[in-house]
Amino acid sequence: MPAPFSENAILACVDKYFAVSHPSLLLARGDDCAVLRPSGPLCLSTDLFLEDVHFRRSYFTPREIGHKALAVNASDLAACGAKPLAFTLSLGLPPDVGLETLDGLFAGMSALAERLRMGLAGGDLSRADKLCLSITAWGEGGGRAGTGRHWLSRSGAQPGEVLFLIGDLGLARTGFELLEAEGRKTLETWPAACAAHLVPQPQVDAGQILSRLGQADHPPVLMDLSDGLARDLPRLLGLPHSGLGAELLIPEAMLHQELVRYARGRGREPVREAYLGGEDYALLGACIPQLLSSLHAALPELREIGTVTDSGDIRLNGALVGDDLGFDHFK
Amino acid sequence: MPAPFSENAILACVDKYFAVSHPSLLLARGDDCAVLRPSGPLCLSTDLFLEDVHFRRSYFTPREIGHKALAVNASDLAACGAKPLAFTLSLGLPPDVGLETLDGLFAGMSALAERLRMGLAGGDLSRADKLCLSITAWGEGGGRAGTGRHWLSRSGAQPGEVLFLIGDLGLARTGFELLEAEGRKTLETWPAACAAHLVPQPQVDAGQILSRLGQADHPPVLMDLSDGLARDLPRLLGLPHSGLGAELLIPEAMLHQELVRYARGRGREPVREAYLGGEDYALLGACIPQLLSSLHAALPELREIGTVTDSGDIRLNGALVGDDLGFDHFK
Repeated sequence: MPAPFSENAILACVDKYFAVSHPSLLLARGDDCAVLRPSGPLCLSTDLFLEDVHFRRSYFTPREIGHKALAVNASDLAACGAKPLAFTLSLGLPPDVGLETLDGLFAGMSALAERLRMGLAGGDLSRADKLCLSITAWGEGGGRAGTGRHWLSRSGAQPGEVLFLIGDLGLARTGFELLEAEGRKTLETWPAACAAHLVPQPQVDAGQILSRLGQADHPPVLMDLSDGLARDLPRLLGLPHSGLGAELLIPEAMLHQELVRYARGRGREPVREAYLGGEDYALLGACIPQLLSSLHAALPELREIGTVTDSGDIRLNGALVGDDLGFDHFK
Repeated sequence: MPAPFSENAILACVDKYFAVSHPSLLLARGDDCAVLRPSGPLCLSTDLFLEDVHFRRSYFTPREIGHKALAVNASDLAACGAKPLAFTLSLGLPPDVGLETLDGLFAGMSALAERLRMGLAGGDLSRADKLCLSITAWGEGGGRAGTGRHWLSRSGAQPGEVLFLIGDLGLARTGFELLEAEGRKTLETWPAACAAHLVPQPQVDAGQILSRLGQADHPPVLMDLSDGLARDLPRLLGLPHSGLGAELLIPEAMLHQELVRYARGRGREPVREAYLGGEDYALLGACIPQLLSSLHAALPELREIGTVTDSGDIRLNGALVGDDLGFDHFK
């Protein structure tokens, strides 16, 4: 059985993995508040990461839980083109989570935090029935001095703009289904799909590059795909009120071969699977065609997936798609 | 039965109670990130507020849940002397929480937010097994221009300084015990104790006054009492490493009469009950004696409760107290 809780033991474990200071903080953890030293506008986002809603302890390692809890927040910073700075972590701990699990969790979280140069500014500890993580992360708004723009927004797409994608579609959902059905042993056969679900990589560098390149009159619009293209694309387009639509061209060759193999094996259509997706943490954007050549040059992994239209509906490879698709966190 | 969830219905309910903009925000909710427009250092704090850990739906009204979730965060801002600006709210919703409950929750939260002039900057929605609220709140660091100090810290108390208190000791714990034992009908007999637990009032104004008055060479140290004096005073004193101690003088006449009556009725010692406390959300501070007259003038409700010593131990009305007292969130 894991050792019983002690708040001091938990805080010592935090100290083992996270520095007590960060250049962006006047005061880090240990007081009633952290004190931030902003040098300009801050982009800030918050996400819950709950056991048996967003992850399962049966097939996530503690390191993966720690990584993903921070990654989903960093992905929101990426979607605004922000440079990550720091975060707070609130932890609700059930009695069967011991220090060994916590050690792994902090190890995974701090590894990603170091890569993104993020500091831990503070947090809260509580007991809970299930493992509960709540992170609030913030970063420096991007953009060029004098432009007055400090972030990339998800709104403002115009007919004629090109839809683009950075990252994989649907792969995380494939991994999720496999892990739910078979547990961790499925990693051997489906390593990329499982990794997409277990340890998503936030597109932080790409977000900042888009932010710098896009500070012209027509910056790209950008968002991260957390609920799948089927649910997130209508948000980017401002449907149903905007009257916008999209003509998507997603050839099967664009999809990860693990997704194609998985879908085929179950008699499903790979492109539809990719469109449904969920928890992709890819970046979805739209930009004027004139910006494409510089985007491709700076971001070789960027792929065009269609065009914004004024049709009021979404077509995928020529076929009209309904709005009953996609992942709803409440279903 | 409450209506089933719909993310759009929830967001419409949020819009009913919270403005979509705030002077401190360049961009509020609806995008991947909120964008803050800081005018200087920001004090930021985060707290979990979990069903059956921090509150029970059996005797909290939805309005009270909404109020208290924000109040405990605002209390941290108060403890730093910060001026509240905005907050994010993450909500984990179990299936039996309907829109009516949410409406009440947002009503209670927005009433306090309006009083504190705080904006809702964003958040996250998820399903959950139990009602789960996670708030991150921030405010403008206080202090006078040119002093280089922008917040009140809990560390730095010195021997000879006077310990002071703003708010009640132990009253919330009395209310908690009564509500746990008897439910809401106990409000008729113990209104103040129940209110202290159900709708704590963060000492935001007092915190800012202390911050302005204290920007001399020796600003007061300050913290908010969330775990009770028995656990929080050692933190203020930096025990056990600091070598500091305290001589507390807390006459029974200083305590709320409901606490005295409750303790007596159960054969307990009222002052000990007050010392144990828990969730008081009062402000505990220490300052040099020379500052007292101006503090009393500005804050008539401020009460002296003792002196910081170099004895290494804590005495309460002359008697040594052990360190086995106080409220541990993990016990």
